[in-house]
Amino acid sequence: MRRTQDPPTDPAAYPFTHRLRARFAETDAMGVVHHAAYLPWLEEARVAYLRVLGHPYDVTRAEGVEFPVIEVACAYRRPVRFDDEVTVHLRPAVCGRATFELAYLLMHGDTTVATAVTVHAVLGPDGRPRRTPEWLRALDPSR
Amino acid sequence: MRRTQDPPTDPAAYPFTHRLRARFAETDAMGVVHHAAYLPWLEEARVAYLRVLGHPYDVTRAEGVEFPVIEVACAYRRPVRFDDEVTVHLRPAVCGRATFELAYLLMHGDTTVATAVTVHAVLGPDGRPRRTPEWLRALDPSR
Amino acid sequence: MRRTQDPPTDPAAYPFTHRLRARFAETDAMGVVHHAAYLPWLEEARVAYLRVLGHPYDVTRAEGVEFPVIEVACAYRRPVRFDDEVTVHLRPAVCGRATFELAYLLMHGDTTVATAVTVHAVLGPDGRPRRTPEWLRALDPSR
Amino acid sequence: MRRTQDPPTDPAAYPFTHRLRARFAETDAMGVVHHAAYLPWLEEARVAYLRVLGHPYDVTRAEGVEFPVIEVACAYRRPVRFDDEVTVHLRPAVCGRATFELAYLLMHGDTTVATAVTVHAVLGPDGRPRRTPEWLRALDPSR
Repeated sequence: MRRTQDPPTDPAAYPFTHRLRARFAETDAMGVVHHAAYLPWLEEARVAYLRVLGHPYDVTRAEGVEFPVIEVACAYRRPVRFDDEVTVHLRPAVCGRATFELAYLLMHGDTTVATAVTVHAVLGPDGRPRRTPEWLRALDPSR
Repeated sequence: MRRTQDPPTDPAAYPFTHRLRARFAETDAMGVVHHAAYLPWLEEARVAYLRVLGHPYDVTRAEGVEFPVIEVACAYRRPVRFDDEVTVHLRPAVCGRATFELAYLLMHGDTTVATAVTVHAVLGPDGRPRRTPEWLRALDPSR
Repeated sequence: MRRTQDPPTDPAAYPFTHRLRARFAETDAMGVVHHAAYLPWLEEARVAYLRVLGHPYDVTRAEGVEFPVIEVACAYRRPVRFDDEVTVHLRPAVCGRATFELAYLLMHGDTTVATAVTVHAVLGPDGRPRRTPEWLRALDPSR
Repeated sequence: MRRTQDPPTDPAAYPFTHRLRARFAETDAMGVVHHAAYLPWLEEARVAYLRVLGHPYDVTRAEGVEFPVIEVACAYRRPVRFDDEVTVHLRPAVCGRATFELAYLLMHGDTTVATAVTVHAVLGPDGRPRRTPEWLRALDPSR
């Protein structure tokens, strides 16, 4: 797999935060949020981040550009319960020629509940890989 | 709302059955399957039924015809638990000019766990209502 | 089925509103929000409503009282798309001895996108039906 | 993160296979299965594998032992479409003192669509880590 780094656990390392609440529908019979439910949370935070950057994902999609997830990794450290408020901290990570990575830190109060990474391809209107847009490349902290 | 009838609770009244198993991801913190998870089960049974009728839904969709759900009603009678095998009994109900209804009976062993109805529109390639196809109208038991 | 009424389509008839945004994970290959995804939205609005009423659902559950959905009906009038903001209007409806109903009106801007009803049982710590609490009965508009 | 290896892409390296079909509810507005929907597929295959091993997960859970996912990684190589049949190949990987790993290869026909790894903790009735059961340790291919 392609992922290059572990997400930092210091919230100060993340330029963007998004808050949400765990839905009852997202819990499972262990009494905690099911591990699959975190992925839409990462996505919701990502969409909010793109909006704040001035590149709303629905506009990008209307222009024919998609950012499909080509890899995800998530480490679950503490359970999240129904109605818990979760803060998703997000930071851009390495950008490749036609891919980019985002890192996530999920906290409930002062507790780190999960860290995650998503890797995205950049696809053009023809469905083929396309050079990562300059506004995304500019976010690469290693640049 | 549009729904015209209550689904019968006698499995013999249903010409088609589809079996599935409750996934752990479908349970919630009450320890039983979450009520929203039943709707994809109805859909899975519907898709299997259309396949058996010789009109697979992916083919119908490739021809530009969609059957979006415009109404759903579900009555939950007994809880379903993780790994329970559920039999979805399905029967066509009334067909309208540009809509049709399906009725469902969900059983776990000899126990009725739920009954449901879905009402569907028929949309053509232009996204506009279209006459219910003859092969669907022919299924209407009241006809 | 048990549901007694159609939800009004005038937002002024609803005492409570809750806003949310359609997630990308909630869309389907028709390009709109999948019909099953509305049920967790109703639930999220319901949980927010109980919190505002001073009876947060996590507290109620910790006291051993559950409000499982025993019936749901939803009529889909207009599609909802990715990133659309949806306002869920909620109002209490009829309360029975050991059940209660809630009605919902979902709007995107000035457009009614769906109406819905959920019927709930009241279960005690022993998992058996229990008299609807007085604070819920007091909300019954027909009372 | 903890994951130690990339899953092999040769199906012959996997002792267990489980087949399923992509549900319409699992697709998204890109017209393909949403990346979060693969995680319940891995889980469904895992549950089927434990059943075949003679240790059904519902029995294990009834005995108070849980195998929560503490890490997941998934690489998406080719899109999966509605109604595609997917074969989930599964193999046990490294077992730790109180954890174990499983590797997955997902194929549609002869095409590799994804590879994945899940890492699980072993928790006892008190909710605390517990030694990985001998029947699981015996599966470790590196042993």
